[in-house]
Amino acid sequence: MLESLLYPNTVAVIGASRSPGKVGHAVVVNLINSGYQGAIIPVNPQAGTVLGLPCYASLEAYGQPIDMAVIVVPPPAVKPALESAIRAGAKAVVVITAGFKEVGPEGAAMEQELVALCTNAGVRLMGPNCLGVLNMHHRMNATFTASQPPVGGISVISQSGALCVAILDWAVKEKLGLGKVISIGNKADLNEADFLQALAEDPDTKVIASYLENIEDGNKFLQVAEEAAGIKPVVILKVGVTQAGAKAASSHTGSLAGADMAYGAAFKRAGVIRAENFEQLFDFARAFVAQPLPQGNRVCVITNAGGPGIMAADAAETIGLRMVSPAEEIRQRLREALPVAASVGNPVDVIGDADPDRYMAAFELVQQDKTIDGIIVLVTPQNMTQPLALAQRLSAAHQGTKPVLAAFMGGEEVSSATDHLMAAGIPNYPSPERAVSALKAMCDYSAWRNRPPRIVARFGVNRRRVDRVIQWHVRSGNKQVGEVEAKEILRAYDFNILAGQIARNADEAVEIAERIGYPVVLKICSPDIIHKSDFGGVRINLANAEQVRDAFDLMMVRIQRRAPSAHLRGAFVEKMGTRGREVILGMTRDPNFGPLLMFGLGGIFVEVMKDVTFYLAPITQDEAMQMLKGTRSYALLKGARGQAPVDLEAIARALQRISQLATDYPQIMELDINPFIVGPVGMRAYVADARMSLAGIGNQDHDEVSH
Amino acid sequence: MLESLLYPNTVAVIGASRSPGKVGHAVVVNLINSGYQGAIIPVNPQAGTVLGLPCYASLEAYGQPIDMAVIVVPPPAVKPALESAIRAGAKAVVVITAGFKEVGPEGAAMEQELVALCTNAGVRLMGPNCLGVLNMHHRMNATFTASQPPVGGISVISQSGALCVAILDWAVKEKLGLGKVISIGNKADLNEADFLQALAEDPDTKVIASYLENIEDGNKFLQVAEEAAGIKPVVILKVGVTQAGAKAASSHTGSLAGADMAYGAAFKRAGVIRAENFEQLFDFARAFVAQPLPQGNRVCVITNAGGPGIMAADAAETIGLRMVSPAEEIRQRLREALPVAASVGNPVDVIGDADPDRYMAAFELVQQDKTIDGIIVLVTPQNMTQPLALAQRLSAAHQGTKPVLAAFMGGEEVSSATDHLMAAGIPNYPSPERAVSALKAMCDYSAWRNRPPRIVARFGVNRRRVDRVIQWHVRSGNKQVGEVEAKEILRAYDFNILAGQIARNADEAVEIAERIGYPVVLKICSPDIIHKSDFGGVRINLANAEQVRDAFDLMMVRIQRRAPSAHLRGAFVEKMGTRGREVILGMTRDPNFGPLLMFGLGGIFVEVMKDVTFYLAPITQDEAMQMLKGTRSYALLKGARGQAPVDLEAIARALQRISQLATDYPQIMELDINPFIVGPVGMRAYVADARMSLAGIGNQDHDEVSH
Repeated sequence: MLESLLYPNTVAVIGASRSPGKVGHAVVVNLINSGYQGAIIPVNPQAGTVLGLPCYASLEAYGQPIDMAVIVVPPPAVKPALESAIRAGAKAVVVITAGFKEVGPEGAAMEQELVALCTNAGVRLMGPNCLGVLNMHHRMNATFTASQPPVGGISVISQSGALCVAILDWAVKEKLGLGKVISIGNKADLNEADFLQALAEDPDTKVIASYLENIEDGNKFLQVAEEAAGIKPVVILKVGVTQAGAKAASSHTGSLAGADMAYGAAFKRAGVIRAENFEQLFDFARAFVAQPLPQGNRVCVITNAGGPGIMAADAAETIGLRMVSPAEEIRQRLREALPVAASVGNPVDVIGDADPDRYMAAFELVQQDKTIDGIIVLVTPQNMTQPLALAQRLSAAHQGTKPVLAAFMGGEEVSSATDHLMAAGIPNYPSPERAVSALKAMCDYSAWRNRPPRIVARFGVNRRRVDRVIQWHVRSGNKQVGEVEAKEILRAYDFNILAGQIARNADEAVEIAERIGYPVVLKICSPDIIHKSDFGGVRINLANAEQVRDAFDLMMVRIQRRAPSAHLRGAFVEKMGTRGREVILGMTRDPNFGPLLMFGLGGIFVEVMKDVTFYLAPITQDEAMQMLKGTRSYALLKGARGQAPVDLEAIARALQRISQLATDYPQIMELDINPFIVGPVGMRAYVADARMSLAGIGNQDHDEVSH
Repeated sequence: MLESLLYPNTVAVIGASRSPGKVGHAVVVNLINSGYQGAIIPVNPQAGTVLGLPCYASLEAYGQPIDMAVIVVPPPAVKPALESAIRAGAKAVVVITAGFKEVGPEGAAMEQELVALCTNAGVRLMGPNCLGVLNMHHRMNATFTASQPPVGGISVISQSGALCVAILDWAVKEKLGLGKVISIGNKADLNEADFLQALAEDPDTKVIASYLENIEDGNKFLQVAEEAAGIKPVVILKVGVTQAGAKAASSHTGSLAGADMAYGAAFKRAGVIRAENFEQLFDFARAFVAQPLPQGNRVCVITNAGGPGIMAADAAETIGLRMVSPAEEIRQRLREALPVAASVGNPVDVIGDADPDRYMAAFELVQQDKTIDGIIVLVTPQNMTQPLALAQRLSAAHQGTKPVLAAFMGGEEVSSATDHLMAAGIPNYPSPERAVSALKAMCDYSAWRNRPPRIVARFGVNRRRVDRVIQWHVRSGNKQVGEVEAKEILRAYDFNILAGQIARNADEAVEIAERIGYPVVLKICSPDIIHKSDFGGVRINLANAEQVRDAFDLMMVRIQRRAPSAHLRGAFVEKMGTRGREVILGMTRDPNFGPLLMFGLGGIFVEVMKDVTFYLAPITQDEAMQMLKGTRSYALLKGARGQAPVDLEAIARALQRISQLATDYPQIMELDINPFIVGPVGMRAYVADARMSLAGIGNQDHDEVSH
């Protein structure tokens, strides 16, 4: 796939130029200097030769077929250039030229014309507004930046051309081996998903590192990314984290979800390793490209200085790696191999006067230890250290059974050692903390690779009842599904709903209460009032007819006063439920990734502490349990301080049922079960309150009465 | 202060050696190579000359007075060497030799002998087990590491000699200017506080950067650090963060307050900037040393590439800096100065083809903007960028009215530019995130510098009543102060305590209840039971005599069954309080820094969510309010979702009273008011439950019955 783009035999540069400083000049220079073995066809109406190559006035003048064209002419000339490339048989076209979608509607229209041309011709388009494409495995630099990094297994997909330039320049200095470097620009046709797929299939690419600002097609991305991550590590730096929160939403779930949560959930689902900042992107990539995956998260640190050892231990414990002591037998042998003042715990401290012999004795023992999954070697350059010799022996002794990451700290004293490590495939980091954080990324990816098979349960449900409620809302043009109808839908999905009915007056309320039995709860019913309790629309624990009657009348009077424009359908009289732990279960539909499920400990703590987890639907039983375990308040649910644990399975089942409901009914945009009441195993958990909203129906938009 | 150590005119090297590779050789080499202008006196019984310098068999043989001695002889020879140095008039001695406290009790005893010798003679001792001292301002490298960094304003205090070596080597490579580099070793005499004080007074030191594993004397450190931070920035990397948590404590406060919390509180009080990892230590130091402090936290980012701009914006918002748009007038002028495709918001995006002229136009305008407190300049090396020219013009245009930090990203293309920036005093960072994080440290320090004056209120209290309770416990040898007596103490500090009394039998319980009025609460009284509710020792809302009688009898029967060995004094009958928000107020005495106050939203959420803040006593009104605001649950207290706000002042006053109690009574080791019930302004907040523990009294240790 994308063979013509990444491995073309003939590249035409339309807009090739003889003037240094011009992009059309730089592309030809870079193609030549990169050692490209295919044919380079400069095209320019005015030029006879460019850099010694014969230049053609047009592709027609060239007259032979081409595989790929790089277009660097001004915006208005791009379309004819593209047409000529298509006529010349190009299967892929890279449009470097800027001035399209990014400058406004006119540019966007021009860009659409290019896409249409390509689609009709079955040609793939990269860009516009990009840096070009570099394939070190094909010795082809078809970009306008001259940097030529070493050849390696890390391939890059970047939504920022400028960042590509910085990355390439930096990789040269760091001697970091790169494979393909792909600047996706405006993503008019080919986008991140296409290149993820191509690089997943590319045997020369060992790790995919990507910088993204947005994702074009969430579903395709999810599918492609999960496939890619199943083959090789995919590390993504997704920026635009904080601004994204400002999403209008009426549900709790929606207001907590923000786009970044959806990206996080998508990455988790797909096994994508998320870099939190620019340095992590390559910190992680360089670990993955060179080292085997750890089988668990037990890490051992070997150091010749206490301080860096403590730094690593602090970082490891904070981040969730396990600092375990070597196995007793290994410890015994370490004691024999090391001086008395050394430490054989974790970190293993070979102390300041360790020469490479002593360091290696410790390393070989820890490497043998089957209770250790990964090793971090810390070195400060002391009198006896011989950093280069140590680096050479380390890389020679590394058996590749578990990952070894290094932090040789210092400057000139360690620079030949770190160069050697990099070349020998042991990633070196400038600080202990960064080595630890890279190892953690490896552990997380390894755990994802070893995840249990995803089996989504299907529950028997009554879809006809749900259809009826939704159709009623469609007919009445009301997007908001209030408590009564939301519960009807949930009942059809086998949720436990308490007995109850709408009363239009106090007499009816008493009649219903007598039938279902005291105590009861009274809740206002109005399509215009979503947050009932904010309006005094909930009264609990009503124990007799008189209390019901009083509560009904008072509620009607007061709400009419506070929200005179609200349409009141009456009050919902419901059996008072048993007490239990309040949790909130929710769903919001992300525009990119579809239904996003939420779990949190209920009440205002969800809003204030924001202690919630998100997962993309559909979820498995295991993932539902992960959602519970992902909250800090999980300890409470499990039973903190002698309290009885709640029925965790009941919550997990409820989440799976919501997952199925959201998958079955794309019309449901948002859903809050708040609270869902769950008690100890044996007590049947129930829905105490719920609401949903549906996708835009008709023109009428029932907004909530403003508070 | 420490003049003889840092600026000696004569340095004797006792243990000087002719053999390369020996520490006693390296020290003499380094003294010579550093260009030291004073007299170097090698001392060695066997050597005639060392590196061309006349070598003396002993200091007696030298016969003249010396200022400072560096001792590098084997451990048993250190004491006589020290004695001879003292006789020769040395005012400061550096013992590089290792093999003292760090190797066990014998070494520790030898070390104490050295300290005693020095104390008697009025001589200051640095080390033992250290790298030595380097003072670039005096051209004196009295260490055994050869690295000579450029001269600069950052002085280093390190508890790890190995780390010093790495730092020095790295500083050479990074061209980072250092002043004094002090390896404090075992801190037998001189410790971090002494050197903090010396460097605070040192006019050539602009910033103090320190690596510490522990602090010797908390009170002295607090005082000295606060004074130092009042003069210049003090950045400290304190490691050993996670292991420290394992502190045995019976109170909630104690169990939440590991040693690291105390360090955090101490740093906050003293205005010390805490580095979270090794890279931050110098990321921060190099910002402080070169740039003016910001007057606020409004930051503007100027970039020539969208991606890095978003990275910076994400980091700024996450970390708590304000990304504000330039003032309207400046935006207008930016619009005129920049092309249409540029962005004049924040980040200001001068776009990829910006040359230095355009960059500088934007920079000059943002620099003028009085609504911006700090500027971050991001650069990717594009065709038009000319990084070096840009760096030169940036440093020339910088007026020094607000801090400017840079992230020129890339490798060779930007390396001369970043070298220039470093030399010109504009700190450059390899990623936008690190620049942002350095600016945040500057903002935090600036805010501390501008803090209001600390005025600790003194409340009128009844100390005699407290004395009485404490004396009773001292006499009975009971460290645990149970609810009843703890409340007596708190009442004496004017806390609101509900009416109540201990009942020994059911009849008494009813009698008390009738007197104080229903409803009442019944709580078990036993010095052996701390967590009453875990044992079913609390019954609330008892409304009449029968309920009180039943509750009393049941409680006694059941607790005797569950905790047969517990000594039961009876039950406390207390007026049932009005409902309100439960908060927890606590104090634990840190062995280093003394009373550490805690605040958190009450109940099990404190334990599970760990949403608590700590502050060292004594605290001011302002600091007490900061403790409230520092929790995530503060929003709840302020009144989230239409709930009435609670009386924040009442909590702040309570914290100040605890602060005073803890300061007045060093015998009180731990204190929990859990819960403290607080309602809206107007309702009098009260102590619902409390306990304390006292410092070790006698031999008897009443441990809690195990659950």
